[in-house]
Amino acid sequence: MAEKMKKISNHVINCNAGPARVPYDVLRKAQEELIYYENTGISVMEMSHRSPEFDNIIRTAEKLLREIMTIPDNYRVLFVHGGGTAQFASIPLNLCPEYKGCKVNYAITGTWSEKAAKEAEKYCHVCRVTPKLDKFTSIPDVDTWKIDPDGKYLFYTDNETIAGVEYQYQVKPFSDTMPVAIDMTSNFLSRPIDVSNYGVIIAGTQKNAGIAGLAIVIVRDDLLGKPMSICPTILDYTILNKMNSLYNTPPCYPIYMTRIYLQWIKDQGGLEVMGDRSDQRARLIYDTVDQSNGFYYNGVNPNCRSRMNAVFRIGGQKGDEQLEKQFIQECKERKIIGVKGHRLVGGIRVSMFNAMPVEDAKFISDFMIEFMELNRK
Amino acid sequence: MAEKMKKISNHVINCNAGPARVPYDVLRKAQEELIYYENTGISVMEMSHRSPEFDNIIRTAEKLLREIMTIPDNYRVLFVHGGGTAQFASIPLNLCPEYKGCKVNYAITGTWSEKAAKEAEKYCHVCRVTPKLDKFTSIPDVDTWKIDPDGKYLFYTDNETIAGVEYQYQVKPFSDTMPVAIDMTSNFLSRPIDVSNYGVIIAGTQKNAGIAGLAIVIVRDDLLGKPMSICPTILDYTILNKMNSLYNTPPCYPIYMTRIYLQWIKDQGGLEVMGDRSDQRARLIYDTVDQSNGFYYNGVNPNCRSRMNAVFRIGGQKGDEQLEKQFIQECKERKIIGVKGHRLVGGIRVSMFNAMPVEDAKFISDFMIEFMELNRK
Repeated sequence: MAEKMKKISNHVINCNAGPARVPYDVLRKAQEELIYYENTGISVMEMSHRSPEFDNIIRTAEKLLREIMTIPDNYRVLFVHGGGTAQFASIPLNLCPEYKGCKVNYAITGTWSEKAAKEAEKYCHVCRVTPKLDKFTSIPDVDTWKIDPDGKYLFYTDNETIAGVEYQYQVKPFSDTMPVAIDMTSNFLSRPIDVSNYGVIIAGTQKNAGIAGLAIVIVRDDLLGKPMSICPTILDYTILNKMNSLYNTPPCYPIYMTRIYLQWIKDQGGLEVMGDRSDQRARLIYDTVDQSNGFYYNGVNPNCRSRMNAVFRIGGQKGDEQLEKQFIQECKERKIIGVKGHRLVGGIRVSMFNAMPVEDAKFISDFMIEFMELNRK
Repeated sequence: MAEKMKKISNHVINCNAGPARVPYDVLRKAQEELIYYENTGISVMEMSHRSPEFDNIIRTAEKLLREIMTIPDNYRVLFVHGGGTAQFASIPLNLCPEYKGCKVNYAITGTWSEKAAKEAEKYCHVCRVTPKLDKFTSIPDVDTWKIDPDGKYLFYTDNETIAGVEYQYQVKPFSDTMPVAIDMTSNFLSRPIDVSNYGVIIAGTQKNAGIAGLAIVIVRDDLLGKPMSICPTILDYTILNKMNSLYNTPPCYPIYMTRIYLQWIKDQGGLEVMGDRSDQRARLIYDTVDQSNGFYYNGVNPNCRSRMNAVFRIGGQKGDEQLEKQFIQECKERKIIGVKGHRLVGGIRVSMFNAMPVEDAKFISDFMIEFMELNRK
């Protein structure tokens, strides 16, 4: 057993919750052409955003995304500065024409959806459609949501990284006039979805599709053209769409990284394969938790456990902080990093995005079993 | 002469107006440690923004900037998403507490300052202090500016990249209660300045200090704490300052690139050296223009010619488009790229930021002389 416990990964197993692991092949390609991009003699970092070379990069990124996600023609794809937090303002500023004159619906299932709602309150009357929860361990049934029928849209966060809660279905639009706006920052491109279910999809790219500093917006074209008058240009979908995401200098290098990452996803087999792998990774960790007789504890309702962020305590429901500290330390010794839980909930969090091979989740689950066998009281 | 005309640069001379050339040594370092940063076993792109390693990167960037610019202690340094365009909204949203309740002063000396004023009009009453100009070829004397004494601030753009106009002095604050807000996006870190002259300095990093997707804000601390209620969190200096630029995931890789770039500036000798080089580069080009007997034409008042962007026509004041096309083509053959003038003004634009060695400006000026000798009618 002592021998077995010394097993060290042959590479760092990066479980950071975001910015997160990037596939080695993607990093390798970026490194190879960092100084000289193709036959240009310059770096992508030094290129004009209006050059034919950069145009090819951003248009290829869009083309790949449309192909991978099967995005219908009546949806626009925008590459924008910032991440989810910027989009929390963008959504109300673009979907509500009148300052403080519109109602909007928010389903609160964790820290991120609550942050989104708070930001929207600067501009709209926010209706929180879900009951106030003490802990974010389940998703209240959609049938019980108190949706204001006059709301301009219905917003929800597909995956909550802190509590580890994820919708395992697509919430349908309440009516023809109330589109669904969804934050997919933390589970973007991790399984096939029906884009046409949504009015707006937002996603920072730093978890499943690239690096920090870029967000992707997929918006149905009939929702454009009516921004609030106070919407800053940088957040204005209508202007960004009109200028093909090149109104101002975009975050060029993050766009380039996403372009390579998207090619990698396509080459791996697309969203079916990403979905299969995420299921396998999640099963490895949650099965270990469930078969631990309470040594590992995850309080999330199994019907909404996150495939991206497995959050658990060690040594029982409340967690044994000493044991958790030891676990994190022993992970580190085995080159498993980034497993410390978010400060709001404590414990352990294993984040497993597109770039993590299933074998690495297996390595972690094997270690969890060994750790349990040695430390169970 | 034909022999001389065939002289080809041994590398691409990148005159892009932004994103722009990055020093080779900076790119080389980024390439070397792209996959594995120091002894972490992961890339900077994969690091948590809350990790000690990234904290060291962003704090070192700040420390270097404070040292290079001699930033007084009562100024805060923020690393923010977006670029100048985002900051055009941020400035009024942070310096004016009341929506549509404040007056602000803008000096209009080109396309960028006009864009900044237009954005501010969403939130404030904008007073354009300069007379309406037909062409942006001079900077109206500050004594003639019609500044509204109740204005919350006085804004100007230090360098206008399209017309090639640059202030060669620092505009002093109008009064103790009206700070100067300055956009230094296109001449940031290109010469020593007295930071204490300004209330707010904004600069996108993609020209003189890094790559696209990041802006730096230097703000006097007494100006914090009074944002407009409608200010999106992502643009809120007070929140960003409170969280040391880590309220949300920042553009980590662009921050890392700026950190290396700043080290390069320091190693080269700091802003005195950057200033000397920019003067030398500019002199090489403008002297060639001035000694061309009208073959090259730059209409900007010599007291405000941009050191960063030399804008000129070929074949007389109105420009001979055929000759300009030929010039651009022959530049390309000599590996001089990015010299086509902005579509709003036409002609030629030679952009020369921190990363361009003086020898490259000499190479361009030599070519300009040879081109003139062969093509003068």
